[in-house]
Amino acid sequence: MYKKLGDQTVKFENPPRIKGFYSIVGEKEGQGPLKNFFDMIVDDAKFGENSWEKAESKFIETAMSNAVTNAEISMKDIEYVFAGDLINQCIASNYAVRQIGRPFFGLYGACSTMAESLSLAAMCIDGGFAKNVIAATSSHFCASEKQFRFPLEYGGERPPTSQWTVTGAGAVVLSNDGQGPFVDYITTGKVIDLGITDMNNMGAAMAPAAADTIISFFKDTEKSFDDYDLVITGDLGSLGSELLKDLLTQNGFTVSSKLQDCGVKIFDAELQDVHSGGSGCGCSASVLTSYILKSMEKGIYKKVLFVATGALMNPIITQQGESIPCIAHLVSLGTEV
Amino acid sequence: MYKKLGDQTVKFENPPRIKGFYSIVGEKEGQGPLKNFFDMIVDDAKFGENSWEKAESKFIETAMSNAVTNAEISMKDIEYVFAGDLINQCIASNYAVRQIGRPFFGLYGACSTMAESLSLAAMCIDGGFAKNVIAATSSHFCASEKQFRFPLEYGGERPPTSQWTVTGAGAVVLSNDGQGPFVDYITTGKVIDLGITDMNNMGAAMAPAAADTIISFFKDTEKSFDDYDLVITGDLGSLGSELLKDLLTQNGFTVSSKLQDCGVKIFDAELQDVHSGGSGCGCSASVLTSYILKSMEKGIYKKVLFVATGALMNPIITQQGESIPCIAHLVSLGTEV
Repeated sequence: MYKKLGDQTVKFENPPRIKGFYSIVGEKEGQGPLKNFFDMIVDDAKFGENSWEKAESKFIETAMSNAVTNAEISMKDIEYVFAGDLINQCIASNYAVRQIGRPFFGLYGACSTMAESLSLAAMCIDGGFAKNVIAATSSHFCASEKQFRFPLEYGGERPPTSQWTVTGAGAVVLSNDGQGPFVDYITTGKVIDLGITDMNNMGAAMAPAAADTIISFFKDTEKSFDDYDLVITGDLGSLGSELLKDLLTQNGFTVSSKLQDCGVKIFDAELQDVHSGGSGCGCSASVLTSYILKSMEKGIYKKVLFVATGALMNPIITQQGESIPCIAHLVSLGTEV
Repeated sequence: MYKKLGDQTVKFENPPRIKGFYSIVGEKEGQGPLKNFFDMIVDDAKFGENSWEKAESKFIETAMSNAVTNAEISMKDIEYVFAGDLINQCIASNYAVRQIGRPFFGLYGACSTMAESLSLAAMCIDGGFAKNVIAATSSHFCASEKQFRFPLEYGGERPPTSQWTVTGAGAVVLSNDGQGPFVDYITTGKVIDLGITDMNNMGAAMAPAAADTIISFFKDTEKSFDDYDLVITGDLGSLGSELLKDLLTQNGFTVSSKLQDCGVKIFDAELQDVHSGGSGCGCSASVLTSYILKSMEKGIYKKVLFVATGALMNPIITQQGESIPCIAHLVSLGTEV
């Protein structure tokens, strides 16, 4: 059976279920507007480890282990782990999965990784290759600043367009049974690059990719904003979100307050000095596994489009004059609650 | 239908077919024992670009485009691209797919990426999510040395256990129809770490992961070396290959000359001064898409186990005292020729 709709969308025959999930964030995220939704808030940026990299690995491992506990299964029931992160060579995930001890597909989708991992996990379940799998990702403010920008001790100034990498992780157990929210469609992004070269303006770079994927989904499925209660992007931030609204409006869509962004929701723009908002793989992952899924379980949202966005450059290639290629992956979630 | 065998293996219901493939390598690889098998040999390490990173991106893009041409389809027929590489944030693949313009799942499996991408590509086809997809990866000696070790100009000495990162790429078009070699089983690796901390001894670090995956495959399928004409690992090199033989022998397997390694085959150990052999994502990818698949098409090998191995650390985490976690993914290939 061929499960494609249009050019980029899959409609699942037996929509996989979210059987368990878990969110864990750092101190700053735990002081923000979503503080009551997170499962764990860790005040120590090193999480008891001796480096930020090892701390990030412990964040994602904690999210994966607890998501499995919440699913009321054991780790040996997990057939595959789909995970990745921002650190060079994805070491946060690699070292976490060393502890987990299950078959592993490592991913790199930058900040789109939560939607990428969920997409592949859903294909894996619906295709009959597994009964239970994990999809997860993480990021860490200190590890990211050190790697992509400046050492923290340098105290570099952040321009107004910049975003704040979320310290946190989210993990989901996807299953072929259960009563949790289901994944009924995915739309996989193409790489879109409109020529932005400013690494401190990721929202502007990523907005066209988000628009492209959302428009493709609506075209492929013949659905519209009316069919969803919430359409939430990953980490466009306040500036990128405005650009996305413009792009969707230009393409004939009537954009309402249904269109939101995890990077805007996770921090208080006025009180927390994060400039354009949150970012990083852990941003959309921790918001999905707290605010979004918990609101769905309560019946506040019945149909959600989760659209995580990623910027696929690195500092070397932007220093060589290249622009920033971006991608957005979409996952359609639903619930009968 | 549930397609798992044992703990780690999938048996495909409708084994996907390799409809087209293409190999491209650098000058040194083009002087080695497999020179007559490669589709393109590029003598210029920069491939006409102004950086090694951009050159690597052009290598993998060339491999992908030509694999599609060889499959006698057009790029718009490609529904997904599964690719990744060794450069931080996988930019070789990301920028290549910007040119390709098709939906993209970015992967990070270090030197196991060719088997990882083939595994996910095969699941995607067999699951009914696509008719034609690309699986590809690349590596570049100069870009890797600069990133993982020393600037080339420094002229660092290489210890006898070190391996030589292959400059090259390989791409495969996997399809739900055609007469090419098929993928009938995959065994997805777990992260294995026996405590090796020497970044110049990757073969020793990776051999236990290769042993674990090969043993799991034989256990899950109740098959043995007798069922295959060739069992070829990715880039254990000469030292790692000896360790793998020991590990398999200790586990009761009779190991014959059927057990080979892409990293050993691609260079002439005596003439080419590569110490323990070739390595890098491009090593197993370029050997698969030249020697292995061309030998299968000629009927020289009918059944092949392709087992690509990856070391999942980065320089930061090894400098923090961590050991090297490794993984091996196995793909079983067959042909009626």
